[in-house]
Amino acid sequence: MAPALLTAFVGGQEGPWRVERIDKVIGPTLPKVDRLQIVSGNDRGLGRSLWVLRGVTSNMRYTERDEANELSARQEGLGRPQSSMAALIPIRKSEAWWELAQDERRAVFEEQSRHIGIGLEFLPAIARRLHHCRELGEPFDFLTWFEYAPEDAQRFEDLVGRLRSTPEWRFVDHEVDIRLSR
Amino acid sequence: MAPALLTAFVGGQEGPWRVERIDKVIGPTLPKVDRLQIVSGNDRGLGRSLWVLRGVTSNMRYTERDEANELSARQEGLGRPQSSMAALIPIRKSEAWWELAQDERRAVFEEQSRHIGIGLEFLPAIARRLHHCRELGEPFDFLTWFEYAPEDAQRFEDLVGRLRSTPEWRFVDHEVDIRLSR
Repeated sequence: MAPALLTAFVGGQEGPWRVERIDKVIGPTLPKVDRLQIVSGNDRGLGRSLWVLRGVTSNMRYTERDEANELSARQEGLGRPQSSMAALIPIRKSEAWWELAQDERRAVFEEQSRHIGIGLEFLPAIARRLHHCRELGEPFDFLTWFEYAPEDAQRFEDLVGRLRSTPEWRFVDHEVDIRLSR
Repeated sequence: MAPALLTAFVGGQEGPWRVERIDKVIGPTLPKVDRLQIVSGNDRGLGRSLWVLRGVTSNMRYTERDEANELSARQEGLGRPQSSMAALIPIRKSEAWWELAQDERRAVFEEQSRHIGIGLEFLPAIARRLHHCRELGEPFDFLTWFEYAPEDAQRFEDLVGRLRSTPEWRFVDHEVDIRLSR
């Protein structure tokens, strides 16, 4: 595992990723911007931004050893040349979620919703990186960044559609869906 | 559960808590200060400080529902008038710990080390609040604040002694022990 990495997703006029659209899924949306820049650490983005979302990579919260091994064996990293499409999906979960004990959250997350199992079905096509932001006092709890090739675009729709129909998603009270290309 | 609360422990010349001693347990210590001030949110402390440690309360990471119910039934809050003694114990865990999957960390934490079970034995005498700081880029991963009455001082020594002898503590690679009174 790489050390925890603070990442800022900077929406504005600069950056390699063109923002195709920003869709409101649950709750308020974010203002449309032309470009997205991904900035590591505490570096500042170039140019003026309309919004900045910050998150940090962290340890696994629900994944068990067998699942972690299967994920490692199948997944590929970010930045593959053919991955010219991306999505940034910020979500926030309800207070009811955060009040659950660890075993209750694990049961909803995997035994009821198969969050890890569904993700595995789409590897290695859909690469992802999860950033945590609840402890940072940010407006969202998680920022998930996905990368994939144009020929996998429909598979990506299937992935998000399936996740959004799970019992876990009943605990999501804010979600925005940002689609990008380069 | 209260909303996540950012807390700064400010070591310097100000504050209600007198710092009795600062002991190095594992790794480097912190400079001795006279007083500790506990500041909520992003407020600034009063006066000049020698060090500031920040952490945020968060959701349970290992505690299961039955354990959570037992903790809630037995524990008392911070700020009891008779709790004139306190300890702030910052710890950092090794990369080996953070690379473990969730089920592996739970097994070390509770099935092997009885971290929750040991804590329960000392309730309600020893009140505590855990603050997370790994995601904040802080030098420690956790700051635990304990409060107790002078007649429970020996029990507090028993508690920290027992925790430090567990398999979980083999993953602690930095620990400082700050004792206070008011």
